Amino acid sequence: MLRQVTLEDIEPISLGAGILGTGGGGNPYLGALHLREVMRRAGPAPIVDPFELADDALVPMIGFIGAPTASIEKIHEGTELLAAVRLLEKHAGRKMDALGIAEIGGANSMGPLVTSLQAGIPVVDCDSMGRAFPELPMSVFLFEANASVTPLAMVDSGGNSVVIPHTVSAVWAERLARNLATSMGATAGLACCIVTGRQIKQYGIHYTLSLAHHVGRRVLQAQDAGDDVPDAIADILNGRIFMRGKIVDVNRRTTRGFARGTLAIEGFGAMPDSLYIEFQNEFLIVYLNGEVIATVPDLICIVTEDTGEPVSTEVLRYGMRVAVLGVPAAAQLKTPAALQVVGPRAFGYDVDFTPLPGNSIGVDFRVQHPAS
Amino acid sequence: MLRQVTLEDIEPISLGAGILGTGGGGNPYLGALHLREVMRRAGPAPIVDPFELADDALVPMIGFIGAPTASIEKIHEGTELLAAVRLLEKHAGRKMDALGIAEIGGANSMGPLVTSLQAGIPVVDCDSMGRAFPELPMSVFLFEANASVTPLAMVDSGGNSVVIPHTVSAVWAERLARNLATSMGATAGLACCIVTGRQIKQYGIHYTLSLAHHVGRRVLQAQDAGDDVPDAIADILNGRIFMRGKIVDVNRRTTRGFARGTLAIEGFGAMPDSLYIEFQNEFLIVYLNGEVIATVPDLICIVTEDTGEPVSTEVLRYGMRVAVLGVPAAAQLKTPAALQVVGPRAFGYDVDFTPLPGNSIGVDFRVQHPAS
Repeated sequence: MLRQVTLEDIEPISLGAGILGTGGGGNPYLGALHLREVMRRAGPAPIVDPFELADDALVPMIGFIGAPTASIEKIHEGTELLAAVRLLEKHAGRKMDALGIAEIGGANSMGPLVTSLQAGIPVVDCDSMGRAFPELPMSVFLFEANASVTPLAMVDSGGNSVVIPHTVSAVWAERLARNLATSMGATAGLACCIVTGRQIKQYGIHYTLSLAHHVGRRVLQAQDAGDDVPDAIADILNGRIFMRGKIVDVNRRTTRGFARGTLAIEGFGAMPDSLYIEFQNEFLIVYLNGEVIATVPDLICIVTEDTGEPVSTEVLRYGMRVAVLGVPAAAQLKTPAALQVVGPRAFGYDVDFTPLPGNSIGVDFRVQHPAS
Repeated sequence: MLRQVTLEDIEPISLGAGILGTGGGGNPYLGALHLREVMRRAGPAPIVDPFELADDALVPMIGFIGAPTASIEKIHEGTELLAAVRLLEKHAGRKMDALGIAEIGGANSMGPLVTSLQAGIPVVDCDSMGRAFPELPMSVFLFEANASVTPLAMVDSGGNSVVIPHTVSAVWAERLARNLATSMGATAGLACCIVTGRQIKQYGIHYTLSLAHHVGRRVLQAQDAGDDVPDAIADILNGRIFMRGKIVDVNRRTTRGFARGTLAIEGFGAMPDSLYIEFQNEFLIVYLNGEVIATVPDLICIVTEDTGEPVSTEVLRYGMRVAVLGVPAAAQLKTPAALQVVGPRAFGYDVDFTPLPGNSIGVDFRVQHPAS
């Protein structure tokens, strides 16, 4: 497991988290650039094992909220998450003991590491989704642990700041925070959902930062060795490749604080299959020749076909040659209670969730990869 | 001047504040119903003279933010303003000494009185606009006194609550608060812009609660005496009647947290003049036969032609017989600095402000009406 993140770890984490982001979580390349810049001055970022946290340690979930399409045009100031954490601490009247990764995907795996170096407190090797999801209530701490998403703090690149002390529900918090994020240019730093060390141990999706690092290292190794990279990714994540092909259509719009759209991919070969994907920041559902073959919460990941690098929703474009993978989501996302919040029906699809076969992300990572 | 507001004072204040609201400030009838209900149990509401405040007294401006059209459909819970004040106090770490009326118009003259009875602190006989305006930055304390609109607290009828500790500018506070209000059903309780007793004495628009009361009493007297009520209103407010006629067209929509629209009125008589009015919560500009005859910040007031009762934007309808009046705004709204924020160009009209003649609202009320 990671005990710290060094300059050399940034590239593999960026690659792995980009893949685990299933299209969302913010641009991993920009996230990596920022982290590298901060780490050059501040040194390695300290990582704490979730099981080494004190039971009463306080840990907020942090990350950027908004549309990934906005975050590549409106570059972050770089201190939004730090300001959000400080504002949350001021409101709560307590210092936070460590920082939680709200979602392991994309730039949102990097933001907490940057903040850790700025704030001088460690990041927990854990996240609250085991992937990226578009909305606040889709955190295991909310639908499994019954934690409160409020108090919630948001800060934008100009320094505009907001605290939401209380909402009727996590859905209301999402509604208010999303509209605020839209007002703030569709991207803002967020700190919310303060949980205890005990809750992290019991409910968190553990070692996902190490998992991202592990996946990224395998991508780099496969690239160096001339292995088939999508195959290597499928193998290490217990996933499968749905298709290798060319993006033949992208319909994407930035609306109501999300990047929403659809995507069509045509397989290689004389009688090609066609794949159709819908997304809301993250890829939600895949149809193969008109039949649903995978849905949330399982991970639908797109990587470049040759180098296995993650392709997130904000960089999708016509003509890219990609591989589309399916990866079994963390077990915590597949309980009946979880599916009410993160299953296909929660996103408006009238289909039941049929889990992809294979070992799930997260819980058994230490068992599967003892040497990591 | 008013030293307290009793049950008997509610009707005149409701009438007077409805007129001073220039179409906005929330429905005066519903505001009066609520205040009457609370006052029946709690007794009269204490009023403090602005010049009797301690220099270091802290006074937040309070009122409802949103679209008047929403507030007549989504009835207030009745404790939103109290909750907003308590939240602001918690964030500021200080108790407030008195409550300020953000705008004297409509229900927003009543809300602070209700809150006063709930919180046990007095309301200052003063407001920050001398009328109602649609946006937060349009307060004399912001454009004249250089006060800060933040910290700002908002609470909706369900109990969802938000604090905005800091924004880059009052315009940014308006942007965030307006979008929050929209999320909250286009109406929410607001407490913001904490000013000192010294600032209230120097910059406030004084005795406007007494003025509303005074105007409303004159309306009731004129009704009883069989006088022409619009004439009586014009006389007491140093205003003029632009037209008496029938509303022949209303185009009104609730959009982005405001009630926006236009209104056409045809004069009585064989060769009628036509009046055209545009509004954003409040009436902004009047054209007589195509020529601009009055604009913000001067008050454009509509009352029923027979009884002189205020007609606010949310109740405008085809066929109403009305009188349209122009009233000279408070002097503080007509300085060059003020006109940048509340003049016609601030609302997108390419016309210069030509003040209506006559004594302005506010500053000289005690001189004009020493017996009030």
